[in-house]
Amino acid sequence: MDEDKRWTQLWLAYNPCQDAGNGGLFQHTTLCGFDREHPVLRNALAELERGLNKMLGITHVIEWSTPSHDGKSADQALLPDTGFTVRRVSEGIRPEGYRLTEQDGILTLEAADEKGVLYGIFHILRQIALEQPLMQTNVLCEPDNPLRMLNHWDNMDGSIERGYSGNSFFFENGEVLVDERTHDYARLAASVGINGAVLNNVNVKDQATWLITDRYFDKVAQIARIFEGYGIKLFLSLNYASPLELGNLNSADPLNEDVIAWWRGKFSEVFARIPNLGGFLVKADSEGRPGPFTYGRTQADGANMLADLVKPHGGIIIWRCFVYNCTQDWRDTKTDRARAGYDNFIEMDGDYHDNVILQIKNGPMDFQIREPVSPLLGGLTRTNQMLEVQAAQEYTGQQIDLCYLIPLFKEVLDFKTYCRPDIDTVADVVSGRTFGNSLCGMAAVSNTGNDENWTGNDLAAANFYGFGRLAFSTSLSAEEIAAEWAGMTYSNDREVKDSIVKLLMGSRDTYEKYTSPLGIGWMVTPNTHYGPSVDGYEYSRWGTYHRADHLGLGVDRTDSGTGYVRQYHEPNASRYNSVEECPEELLLFFHHLPYTHMLKSGKTLIQHIYDSHFEGVEEVEEMIRVWESLKGRIPDASYELVRERFDRQLYNAKEWRDQVNSYFYRKSNIPDEKKRVVF
Amino acid sequence: MDEDKRWTQLWLAYNPCQDAGNGGLFQHTTLCGFDREHPVLRNALAELERGLNKMLGITHVIEWSTPSHDGKSADQALLPDTGFTVRRVSEGIRPEGYRLTEQDGILTLEAADEKGVLYGIFHILRQIALEQPLMQTNVLCEPDNPLRMLNHWDNMDGSIERGYSGNSFFFENGEVLVDERTHDYARLAASVGINGAVLNNVNVKDQATWLITDRYFDKVAQIARIFEGYGIKLFLSLNYASPLELGNLNSADPLNEDVIAWWRGKFSEVFARIPNLGGFLVKADSEGRPGPFTYGRTQADGANMLADLVKPHGGIIIWRCFVYNCTQDWRDTKTDRARAGYDNFIEMDGDYHDNVILQIKNGPMDFQIREPVSPLLGGLTRTNQMLEVQAAQEYTGQQIDLCYLIPLFKEVLDFKTYCRPDIDTVADVVSGRTFGNSLCGMAAVSNTGNDENWTGNDLAAANFYGFGRLAFSTSLSAEEIAAEWAGMTYSNDREVKDSIVKLLMGSRDTYEKYTSPLGIGWMVTPNTHYGPSVDGYEYSRWGTYHRADHLGLGVDRTDSGTGYVRQYHEPNASRYNSVEECPEELLLFFHHLPYTHMLKSGKTLIQHIYDSHFEGVEEVEEMIRVWESLKGRIPDASYELVRERFDRQLYNAKEWRDQVNSYFYRKSNIPDEKKRVVF
Repeated sequence: MDEDKRWTQLWLAYNPCQDAGNGGLFQHTTLCGFDREHPVLRNALAELERGLNKMLGITHVIEWSTPSHDGKSADQALLPDTGFTVRRVSEGIRPEGYRLTEQDGILTLEAADEKGVLYGIFHILRQIALEQPLMQTNVLCEPDNPLRMLNHWDNMDGSIERGYSGNSFFFENGEVLVDERTHDYARLAASVGINGAVLNNVNVKDQATWLITDRYFDKVAQIARIFEGYGIKLFLSLNYASPLELGNLNSADPLNEDVIAWWRGKFSEVFARIPNLGGFLVKADSEGRPGPFTYGRTQADGANMLADLVKPHGGIIIWRCFVYNCTQDWRDTKTDRARAGYDNFIEMDGDYHDNVILQIKNGPMDFQIREPVSPLLGGLTRTNQMLEVQAAQEYTGQQIDLCYLIPLFKEVLDFKTYCRPDIDTVADVVSGRTFGNSLCGMAAVSNTGNDENWTGNDLAAANFYGFGRLAFSTSLSAEEIAAEWAGMTYSNDREVKDSIVKLLMGSRDTYEKYTSPLGIGWMVTPNTHYGPSVDGYEYSRWGTYHRADHLGLGVDRTDSGTGYVRQYHEPNASRYNSVEECPEELLLFFHHLPYTHMLKSGKTLIQHIYDSHFEGVEEVEEMIRVWESLKGRIPDASYELVRERFDRQLYNAKEWRDQVNSYFYRKSNIPDEKKRVVF
Repeated sequence: MDEDKRWTQLWLAYNPCQDAGNGGLFQHTTLCGFDREHPVLRNALAELERGLNKMLGITHVIEWSTPSHDGKSADQALLPDTGFTVRRVSEGIRPEGYRLTEQDGILTLEAADEKGVLYGIFHILRQIALEQPLMQTNVLCEPDNPLRMLNHWDNMDGSIERGYSGNSFFFENGEVLVDERTHDYARLAASVGINGAVLNNVNVKDQATWLITDRYFDKVAQIARIFEGYGIKLFLSLNYASPLELGNLNSADPLNEDVIAWWRGKFSEVFARIPNLGGFLVKADSEGRPGPFTYGRTQADGANMLADLVKPHGGIIIWRCFVYNCTQDWRDTKTDRARAGYDNFIEMDGDYHDNVILQIKNGPMDFQIREPVSPLLGGLTRTNQMLEVQAAQEYTGQQIDLCYLIPLFKEVLDFKTYCRPDIDTVADVVSGRTFGNSLCGMAAVSNTGNDENWTGNDLAAANFYGFGRLAFSTSLSAEEIAAEWAGMTYSNDREVKDSIVKLLMGSRDTYEKYTSPLGIGWMVTPNTHYGPSVDGYEYSRWGTYHRADHLGLGVDRTDSGTGYVRQYHEPNASRYNSVEECPEELLLFFHHLPYTHMLKSGKTLIQHIYDSHFEGVEEVEEMIRVWESLKGRIPDASYELVRERFDRQLYNAKEWRDQVNSYFYRKSNIPDEKKRVVF
C-alpha cells in the first residue's frame, strides 16, 4: 500500500528500481505548444515527477521551461541540447497517439493532444519500471480502438453486480463517493489507455435511476472533472423507463411526443450540469429491463430517439445487444438463445444513427470460458460496433481461481469474420479499420472494487491492466502484456517474472480443463455462477442447456438443429456446421455427439472429459508449486493472499473434476480407461 | 376480513349460521368457583359473547350470575333451572381439560382451571359454527399432549425463515410489535388448544440475541401477558453464544464458572421482567450455530447448565436434536446424515435434567414429503421428548401447492416404535403415556405471517388449525379435522365441505407423486427448496443424496450400507433392512435399487417413477376442477386467491414431472412403457 491509503497502487507502485540510463534524461524538460496548466498536462507531469522520484530517486524538482513565444509556434522553437522535450505536433500523429524518440541525449515526446502526452508519459514510466533503456527509442504509438472503456456494474447501495473484490468505490448507501481513490482509479485506468468509464450498473434500478437528477449532479460532475483530467470520459447507464419513473409520464414509447420532449429537457439539464459527460449506456429489453419492445418499437427506434437528443450535446448512445428470451422453456429445443442477439439486431443494420454504438458481448451466450465469437461482430456492416468483454470473472473463477483472460480476448480480436475479403478480423471491425467509422472500440466489464488490492486476487489485476493495454494496442501479445504487468507489479527478476507469466498464460486453459468441456459452457451453480452444478441450468428458463443424456451431449446448432451456424459468413458457417471441420474446442457448442465420438486426439469424447478434468486439477497443483517457489521473492502479503486463493481454486477444481466426471460416468456408464477415482 | 382489520379471522370468522337449537341455552349464565375477572375467564367469556352475537344474532348482553357465597364452595351452590353453567371442579378432570354436558336444558361446562373453561368455550363455539346441537352433549376432553407449541421462525428484521405468508407480525425493523393482531393470533392459537409459542427464530442472530436484554423486555412482557390471557406460555429462542455476545466473556463453555454466573444473573433479570415466561428453545451446534461441542462438552452439559439455572424461575429448556455435519463431502458414502440425530443424542439418554426436553424432528432428515420416523422418538427412553413437525411447507409446496399435512403428522403419531411391549406409538411417547413424564408434547414450525389471510394460501390455514387440534386430541382423524376446519372457514353446505375435505385429504399423496419418489426426498431447488432440481443437492455438503446412476438409485441404509436401520427397535430394524418387507413408500430411503426392480404393483421402479409423475399432474388438474366447482359457493376473493395458487401448483407439478422423468430417462435410457412425452 502507498503511504497511508487503504488501497494499493498496483502496477503504479513505482518501486525503486535499477536505472537503465534513463534518469539523466529528465534534468531539464521543455514544453512546446502545450499549456502546463491544462488539467491533463498537469496530471501527466505530476505523474512523471512522482514516478521518477519513487523509482529513480530523483528528488529535486525537475526544471521545466516553455519557449518564450509561449507555444504559439512551438514547432519552430529552439530546443535545448539535452533533456526531455514534450512537443505538440499538428500532423502525423492521430489524436491520443504519441511518438517517442531519443537522439543524442534528447528524449522527445510528440503528440497532437494532451491525452497523447499523458499516454506517452505512462509509456516512459513503464519503461523505467521495467528497467528498459529509453536510449534509441523510436516508436509511434496510436490507439487501435477509438473507445477503450470500462463498464462498472456498481449499484448505488454499494454492491457490485458480479463483483468479486469488495464493494463499490463509486457508491455507498445511495450516495456518490468522491475521494482520493477516485483519483487513483483514474490514474490506473489512464495508465493503460482507458478513455471512457460507465459509472453505474447497466441494470439501472432504484436510486441509480436518479443519477440524472439534481439529487446527484454535483457529485457526478466532480467525478467527471477528475476523470477528464486523466483523459477519461464519464458515461452513465440509463434507465429506459425514466420517463415513467422520473417524469410521471405513463409511457416510455420512443415515438411518443411527450416522451421525446421529456428526454430532450432531461438531456439539456444533464449536459448543462455535467458538461463533459460522454453519453449513456443502455440495457433495454433484456432480462426484465424495460425497452422499446414494450411499445412495439424496434431497438433502433429506441436507440435513435435517445441518440438524436444527446447529439446536440456531443453525446453518444451505447446500446447493448444482450437481448434474448430469458423465460425459455427448457423443453423447447427449437429456440436457441445463441441466435437471439443476431436475430434481434441484424435486420436493422444501417438504421442506427451515427452516434449510436451497438455493444456486443464477445460470444453469443454470456462470458463463458469458451464460446464462438458473436456472429453480430462483422455480421453488422453498417452499424457502429463495440466489443464487450468481461474482466470480472463471473463464469471464469470469480477472482478466486486464476484465469488470465487476455488470451481469450486476443482470440476474439483475431477471429476472421469474413465480412469482407480482407481487414475482416474482429479487431479490424471494432477498431473502425474495416468500415471506416470512428465510434467503435472495446469495453470491459470491470473487475475492480474497494478491496485493498482492487481486484480480490492480486493476480486478477492483470486482467484490468491487460484489457487496457490490449484495447490500446491490439497487436500486443498476451504474453508481452503479462510480462509488463508482472514486472511492474512484482519484480524485474527474470525468474520471478517468468514464473508469473507462466502462471498467467496457462491459467485459462487450466480453468477450461476442469470446468465445462468443449465449448458447452454453463454447468455452474445457479445464481452465484461459481463452482459446478452440471444440471444447474439444464432445466431452467435461461436458454442454457447441455442436453446430456445416456448416449451423448451437446447442442445441435447446425442446419439440422437450431440453424445458428448460418448466422456466420462463409466459410465459418460451413466449418461450424461440420463435425469434422468444427474447431474441437467448440465441438459441443455446435454439435450433439455420442460419448463414444472419436476426437482428433484418438480419445473418445467421454475419455476426453475424464482426462481433461484430471489434468485440470493436476495443473492447479502445479500452479501452486510454481507459486510456492516465489515465496520470499515477492512481498509476503501478496504471496499469502494469492496462496490462499490457490487453495480455494484447488478445492473448486476438485469439485468440478469430481462432479463432472461422476455426472457423466453415472449417465453414460462408461468407465474411465485409466481407472482413476470417479464417484 | 373482520371489521376494519387488515387480516381475516380464519376459522373464527363466526359467520351467521343456522341455530341447531343452541341459542336458547345462553340466556342466563352462572359462574361457579371461577373469578370472572381472571384474564383467561374474561377472554373466554368475551369470546363466547362475540361468537353468539355474530353467529346466532344474540344481541342483548348475556346475563351472568355468580352464586352468593362467592364461589368459595361453588360445588354446593344452587343452580338455576336453565342456562349455561361454568363450574370449577377439584377432581375428575385434568388440568386444561373440560367436561361438557347438557341435561334438561342446562349446559354445564366443568373444568379444573381457567384454561379448561377457555377450551370448553371454544368447543361450544365450534359446535355452533358447525351447526351441531349441544343438546345431549356429554364429553370429557383432556389434552393428550401436555405441551402444544408453535415455533415461529421470525427474525427481528421482520423476515421469516422459511415463511411463505408475508413478514412477521411479531417483529419489524428490529422492533417488537404489539397490536391488535397479537390478540387475534393468541385467540386463533388458543381456539385450537395451543398452549405455548416460541416468538423468535431458532437461528438467533443479530438483534434477536438482544431479546433477553432491557432493550426489549417491556414489549416482550406485554406479549407474554396477552398470551397468558389465552393460556399460552411465551418462550424465546436463545443464542447459546450470549455470554460472548452480550456478556463480553470470552467463552460460552457450559462448565465455566463465569459463564454459569453470567447466565444465572441473566435469567434472574429475564424472569423478573417477564415473570410468566415459559423458558427457552435452543438450537445449538447445528448448521453453524454455536453450542457446547465448541468447548468439548456434550449436548447434555449445555442443556443441563441452562436448565438448572432456569429451574428456580419455573422455566424449562427445550433443546433441539437437529445436530448433524452440514459440511459433508458428497463423495463420502459412509457418513449418513440420517444417523446424526440418534448418534449425537442417544448415549446421553438419562443424563438430561428433568426440566430439559429434547425436541426431535419427525424424520431423521428435514421435513421431507416422506421420511421414516426419527429413531430418536422412542429410542430415548429416559429423556423428555417433544415431536417437532413443520406446518410451514418448506419442502412440501410452500403454501403455493396444496399439501394438507395432518395425514403425515398422524402417520408419525401412529408409528409403533416398539420401545416397550405396549403403549409404544410416537403419540404415546410424546404425550407422556409411555414413560409417565409430563414435560413433553408436540411443536410445529408455524406457517403464519402477516399476509391478510395469515398463511399465504387460504387452504394452508388447515395446517395451522389441524396441528393445534391434533396436538390436543391425537385420536382425531385427519378427515374429521379437515371437515371441522372447512365447515368453520367456508360453509356447512355438505357438498362444499365434502369437496374441500376431498381436496385436503388427497393433497399430500398428490404432492408426493409429482415430487421425489419413494422416500428418497430432496431433488429440490437449492436454497429456496421450491420446485425441482434433481441434482440440486446431489453434490452438496448437506448430506442429502439420491445416488442415482445409470443403473439405479436410492441410499443403502441397511446393514450393508450405512447401518442406519439398526437405530430402530426390532422388528422395525429388520423390516427396513429387507427390500421385501420395507414399506414401499420408503423403499429408496433405505435401499439402492436398480431401475428394473419390480415393485409390488408389478411395475418396475422406473415405470413407477414415470407413472406416478404423470398421475400427480393429472391429480392436480382434477383438484382444479373440484375447486372450480366451488365458484360462487364460497367467497369470491378466497376462490380467486386459491385458484391462482392452483395455477402455480399446476405449473410446478409439470416442472417436477418433466424434470424428474427426463432426468431418469436420460440417465437410464429406459423409455416410458406408455410412450408419453418425456424430454
